[in-house]
Amino acid sequence: MALIAILPGDGIGPEVTAEARRVLEALALDLAFEEAAVGGAAYHATGHPLPPATLDLARRADAILFGSVGDPSCDALERHLRPEQAILGLRKELTLFANLRPAKLFAGLEDASALRPEVARAIDLLIVRELNGDVYFGEKGMRTTPTGLRQGYDLMSYDEAEVRRIAVAGFEAARRRRGKLCSVDKANVLETSQLWRDVVVEVSADYDDVALSHMYVDNAAMQLVRNPGQFDVIVTGNLFGDILSDQASMCVGSIGLLPSASLDAEGKGLYEPIHGSAPDIAGQGKANPCAAILSAAMMLRHSLGLPEAADRVEAAVAAALVNHRTADLGGDCSTRTMGDAVLAAL
Amino acid sequence: MALIAILPGDGIGPEVTAEARRVLEALALDLAFEEAAVGGAAYHATGHPLPPATLDLARRADAILFGSVGDPSCDALERHLRPEQAILGLRKELTLFANLRPAKLFAGLEDASALRPEVARAIDLLIVRELNGDVYFGEKGMRTTPTGLRQGYDLMSYDEAEVRRIAVAGFEAARRRRGKLCSVDKANVLETSQLWRDVVVEVSADYDDVALSHMYVDNAAMQLVRNPGQFDVIVTGNLFGDILSDQASMCVGSIGLLPSASLDAEGKGLYEPIHGSAPDIAGQGKANPCAAILSAAMMLRHSLGLPEAADRVEAAVAAALVNHRTADLGGDCSTRTMGDAVLAAL
Ligand SMILES: CC(C)[C@H](C(=O)O)[C@@H](O)C(=O)O
Ligand SMILES: CC(C)[C@H](C(=O)O)[C@@H](O)C(=O)O
Repeated sequence: MALIAILPGDGIGPEVTAEARRVLEALALDLAFEEAAVGGAAYHATGHPLPPATLDLARRADAILFGSVGDPSCDALERHLRPEQAILGLRKELTLFANLRPAKLFAGLEDASALRPEVARAIDLLIVRELNGDVYFGEKGMRTTPTGLRQGYDLMSYDEAEVRRIAVAGFEAARRRRGKLCSVDKANVLETSQLWRDVVVEVSADYDDVALSHMYVDNAAMQLVRNPGQFDVIVTGNLFGDILSDQASMCVGSIGLLPSASLDAEGKGLYEPIHGSAPDIAGQGKANPCAAILSAAMMLRHSLGLPEAADRVEAAVAAALVNHRTADLGGDCSTRTMGDAVLAAL
Repeated sequence: MALIAILPGDGIGPEVTAEARRVLEALALDLAFEEAAVGGAAYHATGHPLPPATLDLARRADAILFGSVGDPSCDALERHLRPEQAILGLRKELTLFANLRPAKLFAGLEDASALRPEVARAIDLLIVRELNGDVYFGEKGMRTTPTGLRQGYDLMSYDEAEVRRIAVAGFEAARRRRGKLCSVDKANVLETSQLWRDVVVEVSADYDDVALSHMYVDNAAMQLVRNPGQFDVIVTGNLFGDILSDQASMCVGSIGLLPSASLDAEGKGLYEPIHGSAPDIAGQGKANPCAAILSAAMMLRHSLGLPEAADRVEAAVAAALVNHRTADLGGDCSTRTMGDAVLAAL
């Protein structure tokens, strides 16, 4: 029996993870579920965004279904108490270094994208984002300059081992897909990027069957608008991956449709919709549960070794979307109705 | 008599600056021109991408018309010899800290954008990017970790004076436009961004008439695709500005149409098209000179105090585009023919 940790978190997180859990339960697999608080919800309950009991559950679990964190009422807290620290802490503590963010247009949803239909239709890419390093986790703080000015600083860095393991994840993913890997950096300005590029080139020696290219991040942001269909797999660092994956998700239309997996070296993973906590619509039953449900499908595939069950869930979502849409896609389905439609299609 | 430094640089830089110079000459103003080599071209001629004579000319000049730098044959050089160091060096040495990058759809060019026409048509924004600080200019290098691994690092930082002067530039620009300023940062993760946000809020006390908002950079990248018409002025740091301004330019359609100004505190400026050196089409007479010509117009307005002349040039470009298009816009005009069309429309 596999243990699934459910960490609903803030905003719309509880609503969408509830639907994803219903879908997992409907599959009648040998799964146990345990829930714990995380993010702003945990801070308000216990004084810490990632309480020891939650971290302990995450460690014990075979996989984690995560909702979202982010709570405007916590904006003025010291950094280590803010909701975001929960997801950053989980990624780091569990060494979830490989973030997989697929972006693909669902048939019939061309009209949801701001891109021209023919541009949007060509999108079928996977962003492999590094999650354990970069300027996210370097030394950081506020200090005073010699002339008495306040200064904020954050150290960006990668070492070769950190780059190598994510590069391998990128090449492996490209090999399973269309065999094209684009590594995104800013090597014309950053030494961190220069090391990144050097190591990616070194790793490429083991992947003759994958066509490797390099792109500066400013150009990548441009190409993701101009012609996103040119990309198969993109591998990049934590900060650039944060920006580009959100951009790519919007090219597809609704950020309410896109799942993600954050994996360690053994395939243990945390699964979360890439949308945030959306405090403006929280608690109203308006959120789109599809990204959370598709995250559960990724869990079945990547952590539980159940690819057929994953396929079934993904097919059910695609089928449900034909006649059901939540507000983000211009429809008027509630979160629960959308979940029901997926269950019916299972 | 004003002295204009012309720094053509690499790739298509010489072709497009030549047309911009022809346009400036046609205005029969009291201008003197002096040219100097920069970037890869200067490296090949003198062994340095920003030779002392070029820097000296840039200092003496009242304004600088810059082509572009970037030359693949220099990729293996040490960082301080690469073409990019020339533009970074000029920005820093001349304290050109405020980079203005307007993005607006030209009437009739809706079809050039990958965005839906109704989304693209609404774009009329200005990105105000900081150019003298951030991870671009912090301490950087390669070192070895205690466990013997190669590591690349770059220090990101801003002090309050650096943020204040660019925030003022952003608020002033917003005041001259539609009165909306969106400050983009990643304050949920970065201390540099937290200081940025704090100082922007402090400066806002002097600008009651400007509506200030804050957005995380990942969300901004998303919103620039979803609904770019929501933005008036965006103010942001060097790295985020690099990424978002290229993204915004592509939302408008052709990066071949967009100019930029990089200003110091007195209004002295360097003017450059935001497209790069485009080595693939260099020397073929295919490049679009409009961005360079529009950069010259910005020079007339911001450094030479000649707003009417600037208006004339901009109107001439708009008029020429009605019947003439270079390859980037799906036409077959050469660089020179496009330049001729603008001259005819003057
Ligand atoms: C909440 C935030 C810290 C996080 C990040 O920047 O990684 C989010 O934007 C994401 O992409 O998962
Ligand atoms: C050439 C490069 C160093 C430069 C930058 O990153 O600033 C360019 O991309 C730009 O935006 O002007």
